[in-house]
Amino acid sequence: MARTGRRPGNQDTRTAILAAARDAFAERGFDGASIRQIATSAGVDPALVHHYFGAKDKLFLATMEVPIDPGELLPKVFGPGIDGVGERLVRTFLSVWDSPAGSPAAALFRSALQHEWSARMLRDFLITQILRRAMSQLKIDPEEAPKRASLIASQMAGIVMVRYILKIEPLASMPADEVVRYVAPTIQRYVAEPLPKDA
Amino acid sequence: MARTGRRPGNQDTRTAILAAARDAFAERGFDGASIRQIATSAGVDPALVHHYFGAKDKLFLATMEVPIDPGELLPKVFGPGIDGVGERLVRTFLSVWDSPAGSPAAALFRSALQHEWSARMLRDFLITQILRRAMSQLKIDPEEAPKRASLIASQMAGIVMVRYILKIEPLASMPADEVVRYVAPTIQRYVAEPLPKDA
Repeated sequence: MARTGRRPGNQDTRTAILAAARDAFAERGFDGASIRQIATSAGVDPALVHHYFGAKDKLFLATMEVPIDPGELLPKVFGPGIDGVGERLVRTFLSVWDSPAGSPAAALFRSALQHEWSARMLRDFLITQILRRAMSQLKIDPEEAPKRASLIASQMAGIVMVRYILKIEPLASMPADEVVRYVAPTIQRYVAEPLPKDA
Repeated sequence: MARTGRRPGNQDTRTAILAAARDAFAERGFDGASIRQIATSAGVDPALVHHYFGAKDKLFLATMEVPIDPGELLPKVFGPGIDGVGERLVRTFLSVWDSPAGSPAAALFRSALQHEWSARMLRDFLITQILRRAMSQLKIDPEEAPKRASLIASQMAGIVMVRYILKIEPLASMPADEVVRYVAPTIQRYVAEPLPKDA
């Protein structure tokens, strides 16, 4: 990023905020961390944190170096409601991961698993930035939403593992349309079908 | 392991074989590596490799420090055939991962993802020691078997990620019977239902 008249210290300020945010999110989780605490740790005014990053969720994305903003994609997938959501989710997911954003996303996923603290941050990201919003936008019964969300996550995390990280064929090279045909019914069932009761 | 009259060199021999095997499996894959090559690299006779480890698949398990032998479990899951296989697979899988073997298995999974070479070994392990055998024991059409196997792998790898590594609730703490009720139908569909054709 070219500097045009800005003090060299500005980049250091941004770095200090990111470092403080990483510590805060890792120690207290997304919900438990606050912009005020992060600003205090970084030695800056909270307004400056908002200036550089906007809201806490944007700061969280920047801290984790997430290559895409789920806040922009989720309404297209979940806004139309339950009908067809399985197909929209799998298709959109694959379009992101098959795009140039896929390599940094896989690197993020891989590196997040190496430490308990970074795995916790990835978990927080998935829950607070994706799953919780998805269930809310779909208007899923709050009683069932966490179960449904974690089942959906299990299938999508598995696609990440098999298609993008372990690269098990033929799923690794399968055309996106074909993956959608096979996996979308699973997601649709996890979202919409009655959850089986004890026999 | 207590030494009773064995030469101290024996442990070094075992270690040398394991080191040579790790290199061979990482470079050439399970199918491409041979006991003869491994023995030559380790500076021992192939008979000695068989003496310490038995067949190549047992050497592979030892190299990867897999805490359980899938060769012993798979026939119970897949031998009875397609009917009920989804339930048997998920139930057995959870009983292994919820057991004391689960922690070393998660550590193995986690560490395997950190390097391309170890991810390749994990992939080889899953394909050659589990998926290929599962499809064979179930007598799945060889034309469809790799697709079905990779779909099954995607859901089970996702369970590993969400329940055991990222620990996303409530799936992380859900009673095994409940996980079976929700996930077994997915596996059953991937094994047995006609794979959807292009619309």
